[in-house]
Order: sequence, then C-alpha cells, then structure tokens
Amino acid sequence: MHIVIAPDSFKEGLSARHVAQAIEAGMVPILPNARFSQLPMADGGEGFAQSFLDQLGGERYHCEVTGPDFRSVTAEFVINREHRLAVIDVASASGLPLVPQHARHPRHTTSLGTGELIRAALDHDIDEIIIGLGGSATNDAGAGILTALGAKLLDGAGKPIPPTGEGLGSLMTLDLDGLDARLNTVKLTAACDVDNPLCGPHGATTVFGPQKGAREEDIRDLEQYLHRFASICHLQLGQSICHFSGAGAAGGMGATLGGLLGAQLEPGVDLLLSRTHAHHVLAQADWVITGEGRVDGQTQHGKVPAAIARIAHADDVPVIVLAGSVGDDCEALYQTGVTAIFPIQAGPCELSDALMNSKKNLMRTGENIARLIRLAGYT
Amino acid sequence: MHIVIAPDSFKEGLSARHVAQAIEAGMVPILPNARFSQLPMADGGEGFAQSFLDQLGGERYHCEVTGPDFRSVTAEFVINREHRLAVIDVASASGLPLVPQHARHPRHTTSLGTGELIRAALDHDIDEIIIGLGGSATNDAGAGILTALGAKLLDGAGKPIPPTGEGLGSLMTLDLDGLDARLNTVKLTAACDVDNPLCGPHGATTVFGPQKGAREEDIRDLEQYLHRFASICHLQLGQSICHFSGAGAAGGMGATLGGLLGAQLEPGVDLLLSRTHAHHVLAQADWVITGEGRVDGQTQHGKVPAAIARIAHADDVPVIVLAGSVGDDCEALYQTGVTAIFPIQAGPCELSDALMNSKKNLMRTGENIARLIRLAGYT
Repeated sequence: MHIVIAPDSFKEGLSARHVAQAIEAGMVPILPNARFSQLPMADGGEGFAQSFLDQLGGERYHCEVTGPDFRSVTAEFVINREHRLAVIDVASASGLPLVPQHARHPRHTTSLGTGELIRAALDHDIDEIIIGLGGSATNDAGAGILTALGAKLLDGAGKPIPPTGEGLGSLMTLDLDGLDARLNTVKLTAACDVDNPLCGPHGATTVFGPQKGAREEDIRDLEQYLHRFASICHLQLGQSICHFSGAGAAGGMGATLGGLLGAQLEPGVDLLLSRTHAHHVLAQADWVITGEGRVDGQTQHGKVPAAIARIAHADDVPVIVLAGSVGDDCEALYQTGVTAIFPIQAGPCELSDALMNSKKNLMRTGENIARLIRLAGYT
Repeated sequence: MHIVIAPDSFKEGLSARHVAQAIEAGMVPILPNARFSQLPMADGGEGFAQSFLDQLGGERYHCEVTGPDFRSVTAEFVINREHRLAVIDVASASGLPLVPQHARHPRHTTSLGTGELIRAALDHDIDEIIIGLGGSATNDAGAGILTALGAKLLDGAGKPIPPTGEGLGSLMTLDLDGLDARLNTVKLTAACDVDNPLCGPHGATTVFGPQKGAREEDIRDLEQYLHRFASICHLQLGQSICHFSGAGAAGGMGATLGGLLGAQLEPGVDLLLSRTHAHHVLAQADWVITGEGRVDGQTQHGKVPAAIARIAHADDVPVIVLAGSVGDDCEALYQTGVTAIFPIQAGPCELSDALMNSKKNLMRTGENIARLIRLAGYT
C-alpha cells in the first residue's frame, strides 16, 4: 500500500513539510508495511520555494535585501541547477510578518527587496525564475521590483519617487529602458493563489489592504495611486496591467510581473504540481492525505486540498483532508473529489493552544485515519 | 449494511438519544441504503432511566419529592410493566443540578427524595427496582433513603437526626425494623459507574466531595461522619458497608443500598446491556458508532465506549468513537476493541460554543465517517 501525504502548511503553525512528517509519524505505527511519500505543498504564499526544494532538491541562498519597511532583512531563494531554475518567495523579502504589527502600513511599504532578490537570482546560471506571490506587506504594484531591476519611476520634477504605495501618487514618468538586460533571456513565472485584478472592488487594495494595516482613507488613496500607475503604463508603454486575473496578487506585484515584465501567471498549486513529480506520485497512490490550516467554502478555489483532490480523484484514489478548522460550507470540496474531512482539534481550546498542539493533533488524527485504512483491508 | 449507534450522552450538551439521532442524521444521506439502529446508552448517571425507556419502552411517572436541599422537586421514574421493573435515577430526585451553584454543600444535602422515589415505585406492581447511582448532590451515605423508607436514625437523646452528611455526626442508634415491608419481596439493583469504597482516600467524600461543594475542612468532617455511620452499622447490625466496590457511589448511597438494603451493585453499562436487546443488536452490526462527551485514560473503566467496544470487538465488529474532547492517554481504549477515535470540534472554540454546536459537529463527523465506510465498499 502506498500512502501519499500532500498537505499545505498550517499557517502560523507548521510548515507543509512538518505537517506531512507529523501525519506520517502518526500513521506508520499502525501501517508499518505501507510505503509513504511526502509531497509538501504550497499555493504560492509563504513556503512556496521550500516546497520546490523539498520536492525537486536544490540549494538555498541567502542575501541581504531591503525589507518592506526599508530596514534590511535577510531573504532567501532556491536554486535548482538541474532544472536551471530559481524559486523566490515574495514573503521572504517583502512579507507582512517582517513588519512589526503596530508599524504595518501599506502606504509606506515597498517591494524593493523582491526586486533585489530577483537580481540576485539572475546572477546564477538559470533559465527561469519562479516567484511565489503571497503574504506581502506591500501595495506598491511592484514599483519596488521595477526600481530594483533598473527601471526609472520619476515624479514631475524628474526625481525618483519612493517605490511605495503612496509614492505611486506622484509618478509622472515610467521608463523601462534601464531594466536589467538579463530579463530578456530568463523566463519569469509568477505563482499566485488569488485571481483578483489590480484595481476596483475586487482589487488588491480593497480586498487585501485591510489585512496589511490600511484604514478606510488609506484604501481610497491607495486605490487612486494604483489607478494612476495603471494609466501611466497604458499611456506611456501601451501596456494594460490592470484587469487580468492575478494582477492584484501581492499588493499588485502580479500586475507589474505579468503586465510589464512578461511573467506568466499560474495558480501556485498547479505550477508546483506540473513542475515536480507530484502528478506521477499521486497517480501511484492508494490513499492520499492532504490538509490545510482551514478548509471552508473558499478551499475549492485553487487551494491545495482541492487541487490534490482533483488529480487523485481522476485516478479514483481516495483523498482525506485534515484541517485545523473546518467551515460550515465544505460541500463543494467533496465535489472536487475529497472523500472525507477531519478537523484535528482534540476538544474545545484557544487558538494559541491549537497552534501549539498542531503536531500532536496531526499525529493523533493520522493514527486514527490509519486505523480505518487498516480496517479497509488494503494492507 | 447495519450500523448501530450506541453513544452515551454528551454531558451538559446532548442526551444519548439526541447524540444518536445527530450521528444518524449525518450518516443517512451518505449511506441511504444502510440500516440504522440507535441504542442510547448511559453508565448509571443522569439519563440512565431514559436509556431503559428508549430501549425497553415503558411509562414515565412524576412525583413531588424532597430535593437535595429540602426544597420540593418534581422527580420521575420509569415503569416497564412487561418486565415488572422500575428504573430510578438518583440524579432526578437528589441530583447536583437541582441545587443552585452557590448553595451546593454536601454537609446539608439529603437523599430523602431518592428514598421517596423508591417508595413511590413500590406502589406499582413490580419485581425489581433499578437505581442509577450518579450525579448526586449528597454525602449522606443514603441516610435520607433509609429515613424515607421507614428506618429510624436517632441521636443520643433519641431524636431523629437530620438525614444529611452532617446529621450522621450525631447518629447514635440505627433501627431498620420499620423499613417498608415491600422491600422484602422487591429486588433492588444499583447501577454504578465508579468502584470507590465508602471511606478513605478513594472514598466518596475525598474523591467526589469537592465537585459537590465541599472544602477541605468539610471533607475532614464528612469523612469522620461516614466512618461513624459505618461503625454503627457494623456494631448494631453486624453489617459491613464500607469497603465493597461502589459503596462510595452517589455520596455513599451505594453503601446503604448494597450493605443494608440488599441491593446488587453492577456497573451501569453492563446492567443496561444485559437487561436490554443491546447485546443482540450489537452482534448483528457491521459497524458500531459510540461516543461520549470526553474520552481519556479513564474511559476504559466502565464507561460506555469501552463497554460497547468490548462486546462489538468480540464479534469482530469495528467500533468508532466520537467525542467532544479526547485526552492524550487513550491507548488503553484501543485495546478494549475501539478501532478509531475522532473528536468532533470543527476548530478552536470555547467550551460554550462546543456545547452549542454539539449536534452540528456530531452530524458532520457522522457524515465523514460514513464517507469512509462507503469507500470501504460495505454498501
């Protein structure tokens, strides 16, 4: 019997790899003769590069970059020489957790660090950079990325604007001539787990601004600045960056990467599944265990459990989802091919206890799932 | 396929019958062709009479009795004419919830109401009274029961003592001559879910006194009063009421019922299982679902899930336990024959939310168990 364990991370709790390890540790004593494969997954947010590293191998590189609040941070990226590939997480250089809670303010944050990370990746002998969009502290539509890569973003007096959400409010001239020439030969691919456009009621500012610290008046202003940026792109470069799916990912970095830098945008899970051995491994499974910190009505839209279930279901492989919490509206998830969903909490508890006990709860739930699998006689 | 649902109640949440109904409601849509049998269980505490009523049928009678704090309460018992049987819950006449939280004090509470209920049951044409011990507010070693049934408990001046925990401190003479004569022809059976003796470190006062409102000095005193009562029984009646298993049940009512009134003490679940069709139904099951509000290392000792598992396991029937909360030390429970244990909480939550959502959570967990059962191909 072959059991494939392919969970997402449990946000704020455990990485996808640790989730998979805990589940396997719970199952092994009950099914000592089963073969286990771990496929730690990610949907484009934090841990995306790690998932590539876990599944394809490679090396991790560190470098000092400009953090989202302009303080220096140590960010990292993954290089896989065999596939001539770099994988970068936006969250590593420009992530929300890098800014102290009280100082979170998307008017003043920048994606400069992500641009610097892309430049550092270009120093390696590679053909492609995959960028995981998700978890950013920014709303600058990638102005920082452009600046770091050599573009000129100037105000009415011809001076460089601050590459921030608010800085875009004084943008007058956008000049891409100075862009790093290596971008002409290296393919950019962006992994995103949302399909929001850049502007409007479903855009980056309105939907994701609040969780980055934006208040009502900030949202009104920042929305205008993104509009201004999009209009200048259209008038001066003839590029429409506003409306495509994913343009609003990572505070609008999707717009710049996809609209100005030629990146292809793909749902993160699909990207991970198509570039790794995951498809092949899932097809050989007798059982698939997946999971996520929370599953609810949104999970069917590009989240890990739904993507895994669609693939496994096509091969008639049963899929069990473990979750830190389960919403009321999971019906659609069963239709993607999920067999059953089990929350892992041992009983009523505070969120902090739940996070602290994630590993233990995953092990216990894994053990009990294994007891039912053993019963089904597949051993 | 035949699925038997045999849970205990979820304390403070749902009755055993409602637990069973919720689980079945979750499973039926997934397994529309399965046959379901509900066996609402109890271990001797609150709901014990109801479980007999649910499984054997009968009639419910109400009567006004003396509550644990001497205020009048309406208590009830069950009469099954076919089996010539009455079933009484101590909790109905002398239960802890009948005393307001701030007024709980086992020095001053009485089991009079339970004795009055036994007397009322004796008015019916029956051969046996089964008394569910559990959930009492009292520590009077059944002094109230004896008083209500016609015994004389007198102090040094020849006056009746108050039939309370404290009253036993002034007991000098115990005279059973006036006991209701019908007790000679009607068999008494007591269902208990604990094996504690009357006195000592594992006795009624030390172990259960605190949850009934006894403080440290109360426990010391009440322990002495029980000792006094036991000594008088020994000296004046030649009866040893102190040391047998279950003597400490229901604030020592086990001691009086078993030691002075000739009742046979049996674990509540075993009693329920042996007197009803439960054994027979369980033997015909393909799957058994049981459950309890909390399962932990204590569950193996006479609690419903362990008793059900032992029976089902003997027939090789898989047993799944659903629980409001699961302790760390459940290993022994698997050894009783439990296949798997699943907590029902959807995620981190307060106890009050957990209680409010018990039904929904049982339905959801039942549904997901059913999805795995369907997969196993037993349909």
